[in-house]
Amino acid sequence: MKTLRGLGEFALIERLTRKIKPSEAVTLGIGDDAAAVSVPPGHLLLSTIDSQVEGVHFEWPLTTPENLGHKLAAINLSDIAAMGGTPLYGLVNLALPPDLPINRVQEFYKGLLRQLSAYNTEIVGGNVSASPNFVSGLTLLGKILPKNMKKRNGARPGDFICVTGSLGKGAAGLALARESDSLKKENQAILKFWQTPRARVRAGQILGNLPDVHAMIDISDGLAGDLAHICKASHVGAIVEETALPVDKSIQALAIRLKKSVLNWILHGGEDYELLFTVPEEALSEVRVRLNAVVSVSVVGKITDKPGELVLQKRNRIVEKIEPNAWDHFLTI
Amino acid sequence: MKTLRGLGEFALIERLTRKIKPSEAVTLGIGDDAAAVSVPPGHLLLSTIDSQVEGVHFEWPLTTPENLGHKLAAINLSDIAAMGGTPLYGLVNLALPPDLPINRVQEFYKGLLRQLSAYNTEIVGGNVSASPNFVSGLTLLGKILPKNMKKRNGARPGDFICVTGSLGKGAAGLALARESDSLKKENQAILKFWQTPRARVRAGQILGNLPDVHAMIDISDGLAGDLAHICKASHVGAIVEETALPVDKSIQALAIRLKKSVLNWILHGGEDYELLFTVPEEALSEVRVRLNAVVSVSVVGKITDKPGELVLQKRNRIVEKIEPNAWDHFLTI
Repeated sequence: MKTLRGLGEFALIERLTRKIKPSEAVTLGIGDDAAAVSVPPGHLLLSTIDSQVEGVHFEWPLTTPENLGHKLAAINLSDIAAMGGTPLYGLVNLALPPDLPINRVQEFYKGLLRQLSAYNTEIVGGNVSASPNFVSGLTLLGKILPKNMKKRNGARPGDFICVTGSLGKGAAGLALARESDSLKKENQAILKFWQTPRARVRAGQILGNLPDVHAMIDISDGLAGDLAHICKASHVGAIVEETALPVDKSIQALAIRLKKSVLNWILHGGEDYELLFTVPEEALSEVRVRLNAVVSVSVVGKITDKPGELVLQKRNRIVEKIEPNAWDHFLTI
Repeated sequence: MKTLRGLGEFALIERLTRKIKPSEAVTLGIGDDAAAVSVPPGHLLLSTIDSQVEGVHFEWPLTTPENLGHKLAAINLSDIAAMGGTPLYGLVNLALPPDLPINRVQEFYKGLLRQLSAYNTEIVGGNVSASPNFVSGLTLLGKILPKNMKKRNGARPGDFICVTGSLGKGAAGLALARESDSLKKENQAILKFWQTPRARVRAGQILGNLPDVHAMIDISDGLAGDLAHICKASHVGAIVEETALPVDKSIQALAIRLKKSVLNWILHGGEDYELLFTVPEEALSEVRVRLNAVVSVSVVGKITDKPGELVLQKRNRIVEKIEPNAWDHFLTI
């Protein structure tokens, strides 16, 4: 099997990028000291950066290179979506073990390119170096009209807390990935979601266009942690209703089978990549109409005027505090 | 000693970024899903990405965290300089061992911030995750007027090949770093250059403003490899004169002492971060005048009409082929 050591850095870059055909907006793409692109007049430039590290975010037996590339794209696209923005350009930073088979990097790049190009996003630059383990980073640049930008700090007491799609899938998929092949086969849709999540880019743009959407974030670290970010930035509190949380039946069934708590998956799991946003009651019907063809919407609670107080109204009507624990790289290892 | 494991990811980010005060051009800085910044009208957006990986680009006994941060900034600033551009914004991607002492990350960030702010460049976003080894990446965004942009593909036969400053310092510093403390003490200036190189940002901007500068690149992988990039992109060749290569006397003395070849350091070493550019003979005096107060300039050779042919005219007047070997992460490990 041919490895990177036999190919060399420059030949690898040539091989990975030769199929990339820059669009007109890219004045200068891959192959110079820096890329040069145009940002449309009147727009702000959005930028975000995220990574997938071997042994931390993924392990090879549990993921394929192509799915890894897909996921790296999706998690960054989700951040641009959460602003209401449109992704445009990507820069890829790879640190790779010299003994890695070349085709593994090529498949990674294929998954990355496919997912980015699904949103008309072009790779304009990158960097490759050696490393003991596979470390992949992506910088994603996008555009947004200032009036459409949705921040974390705009939530107001009385706002409805809404989420797109359904929750708990990311944590369920991660749990499933460690189970038997037969269980995986029975639950392929859950596994597939976790392996290849898709960002709510179109929904984010639609919500960006609605002035009544007061605050938005993507749910990447679990509902509790991400809602806590909104509450902290907006100096408000929140009450979430357990019975209102959108969960697929297949996820509930899997949780029972694995003796896991769905509620825990939703609140403190991660990798759902849905959007969480707040709107006043009177705007809710318009939100529903506009998102109708794109994604389902659930109202899961309300913003309160109690700064930092996150509570859950349980099935039995008892209200209890939500610990805003999100995935933390250094506390949870 | 307090480590990251005891602090947590979110507390670390808060600690690293609390001193950052965004300027007016930063509509939304650190702390949301993405940053939002303005790019001045009429300008193209430049973007580049580079990294410093523990065990590959650096080893802890040989570098300090503060110098590492400085260097990560400088190598990216050098890429923006090589386009003739102005750096504006940075995004930092860190993958850190959980057992790393907190102050090591803080010192790294201090060095990074100090070097970026020396060029009015602001950190607007980032990402932190865990990793078995220290992996640091920086995305640098900048601006340039389209007419000022210097690419690699504009060199013309007959152009003079010029370099700023002096060469071989990076490779000399790396060699010195592995020597005895007493030798280091004797050669502190060389060590300091290697530990804390500075990018030729101002010189790059001046050269960007001169229409007669046909092509430009920064010398980060050795003169041979980087000149080869210019020649390949421009479909030209080059002849370099050994006696014209600018080398500090201290570097020559160190090479003799270590029984190393200065020529090899210059051609195939790296980390010099000088600018290499080509101009027609008649523009040379203007280049000299404009750069006079900023940095020295040396004419080291000429562009020829023989595509891909890189030759060196040696001290003894014999002309020999230059192998365009640059540092390659996978071939040299």
